[in-house]
Amino acid sequence: MQVYLDNAATTPLDAEVISAVSAFMKSHYGNPSSVHAKGREARVEIEKARKNIASIVDCKDKEIIFTSGGTEANNAVLKSIALSGKVSRIISSPIEHHSILDSLEWVQNNTEVEVVFVSLNKQGDISLEELEHLLQEHIPTLVSLMHGNNEIGNMLDLISVGNLCRNNKALFHTDMVQTLGHLPISLNKLPIDYASASAHKVHGPKGIGFIYTNSKTAKLEPFLHGGAQERSIRAGTENGSGIIGMSKAYEVSFKEEKKHQQHLLRLKEYAIDMLKNSIPDISFIGNSANLSLSLPNIINIGLPGDYNDTLLFNLDLKGVFVSEGSACSSGASEGSHVTAVLLKNEGKANNLRLSFSKFTTIKELDYGIKTIAEIVNS
Amino acid sequence: MQVYLDNAATTPLDAEVISAVSAFMKSHYGNPSSVHAKGREARVEIEKARKNIASIVDCKDKEIIFTSGGTEANNAVLKSIALSGKVSRIISSPIEHHSILDSLEWVQNNTEVEVVFVSLNKQGDISLEELEHLLQEHIPTLVSLMHGNNEIGNMLDLISVGNLCRNNKALFHTDMVQTLGHLPISLNKLPIDYASASAHKVHGPKGIGFIYTNSKTAKLEPFLHGGAQERSIRAGTENGSGIIGMSKAYEVSFKEEKKHQQHLLRLKEYAIDMLKNSIPDISFIGNSANLSLSLPNIINIGLPGDYNDTLLFNLDLKGVFVSEGSACSSGASEGSHVTAVLLKNEGKANNLRLSFSKFTTIKELDYGIKTIAEIVNS
Repeated sequence: MQVYLDNAATTPLDAEVISAVSAFMKSHYGNPSSVHAKGREARVEIEKARKNIASIVDCKDKEIIFTSGGTEANNAVLKSIALSGKVSRIISSPIEHHSILDSLEWVQNNTEVEVVFVSLNKQGDISLEELEHLLQEHIPTLVSLMHGNNEIGNMLDLISVGNLCRNNKALFHTDMVQTLGHLPISLNKLPIDYASASAHKVHGPKGIGFIYTNSKTAKLEPFLHGGAQERSIRAGTENGSGIIGMSKAYEVSFKEEKKHQQHLLRLKEYAIDMLKNSIPDISFIGNSANLSLSLPNIINIGLPGDYNDTLLFNLDLKGVFVSEGSACSSGASEGSHVTAVLLKNEGKANNLRLSFSKFTTIKELDYGIKTIAEIVNS
Repeated sequence: MQVYLDNAATTPLDAEVISAVSAFMKSHYGNPSSVHAKGREARVEIEKARKNIASIVDCKDKEIIFTSGGTEANNAVLKSIALSGKVSRIISSPIEHHSILDSLEWVQNNTEVEVVFVSLNKQGDISLEELEHLLQEHIPTLVSLMHGNNEIGNMLDLISVGNLCRNNKALFHTDMVQTLGHLPISLNKLPIDYASASAHKVHGPKGIGFIYTNSKTAKLEPFLHGGAQERSIRAGTENGSGIIGMSKAYEVSFKEEKKHQQHLLRLKEYAIDMLKNSIPDISFIGNSANLSLSLPNIINIGLPGDYNDTLLFNLDLKGVFVSEGSACSSGASEGSHVTAVLLKNEGKANNLRLSFSKFTTIKELDYGIKTIAEIVNS
């Protein structure tokens, strides 16, 4: 049996997405920037996709800037704003995605902008009090904090953080790669200025994502230069098939969104119970065992014992596909910076991230957790 | 009848490419950075694609860094090198692609690096003498000049320019978006340090390209930060289906490359003759009528009369899809900066770019050129 429990790293593509991508590649090869009919046909499809996504995430079409994915979106927002001179400080947290943390390192090395990290409690939640104190210093600031943590599933209180930013005239960016397209979110009703999104975490293609830029409160400087695409903010011939695939993925996700959410919550409850019952001394990292404070599809568990990297290897041999954290270390198992921060160790915690999707079944959980328990208890 | 003569803007996808992309999306959804079997399966396919492309363009696998396309590749090379402190000057030309020119403007606004443009003769060829004089000043320099001009088809003498650079210790980048994957090119035998490439100009998907970095002579600093992908030079979950599509497109292109080249040359000769015979006072811009000095698939013609933008519109109505130049102005017909430079006008030359592919037929040329002539001669 093979059980894929690494859906926070990426998800299987929906069959409807693959069909939409293939159909678009066959019939709409024109360059959307060409003024002739072949170009305009492709342009129409891309703008329909933009409208479709905008209606699902509740924002205006023009607030969506397509990118090559969440990493580009995060790089672009942080670097563009740092270079624009609009802010002299960026406040973030030590458990953001690497595309935020590494971009912040670039900002520190290449601009005058100061980078400050807000403190976390032991569950991995930021200190709102500390954030408020920092913002009350009235230094022109961008706050960048992720909505749903990709490793421990902690959810940020967007409204509280956004209102703190609004009240103190700070800009607010949030990495929503794990939440936009998954959860019902109404961007225009939230006090946020910028958000980053991706398609492949929600059964869409890899290599496509977008930046949301609140048209009432925020602007974005160009970051890839060379053409008038994406209202001159992101040059480069549009990845039309990727855009159509993302639109279809978001559409499919929200067709039966309530059913999927219920299914994920049921899986999560079931998994937590089974893990507790089958592994003595198990712990749950962050808020991942708290259904109301964390993403419905992520559990991060701390395990007793010392496995020296053999745990993932042995699980893999038995067809159970999980991870220690983010996939972004490209095969090099350096451990997770998130659990390292939370457990105050050097990234060699015995922890596992289990992440589900709408395709995951109770039977798969049974096999996956039974296998984990057998190895851990042996 | 509909005739697509805008293949320098983009090309119809090969059926084999669409099949390869679809098959990959169905079967290899894993994140290539995941250490488990699902991740490794995707990683294997991506590395096979990299090897395949490397063998076709004759370089080492590790010299290929995948990007979201030619525009990102050009931005990345110029901005990374400008920020690295390795050079204090970039020499380029005024008829490069906008992704070069606009990146150079960014370099001027955001770094201390000086930007110098080498002079062109009236055909649009750079002055090698002037370039040599500039390089003999022994200022640490990057030269960026495109291999095949996307509007007028002029080919650069890569060996002469590259040797001038080598002899004067300058780095050499060349935008090969119109030539890599089209023409037989042996990267490792050329005196170049960096090259940019794209898939969608050669019947591959949009949203994918690569940077060639000569491992013996050149390095590239990271430009998208946040993960160890592409040897930590370009972060972001790999666009696997795009990479597989580009590999297939290059493979298909070279399966019958000689046949395609002969076909394109025959089309070009035929088109030049027919244009000369059917439109009095026609001129050919750049070297585009010179078969040995220009790309086999691009002709750029100057036309008598004044059409005030109605020419493209009327051709479009009759199903003839051509352009004035690069598609990158996104529907806004601002005219071409290339013909503006060469004809010393303000970009409102009456010119048309006709560009072919292996799928173009003599019958299509007959209809396209007959239609152009009817409008121009009426």
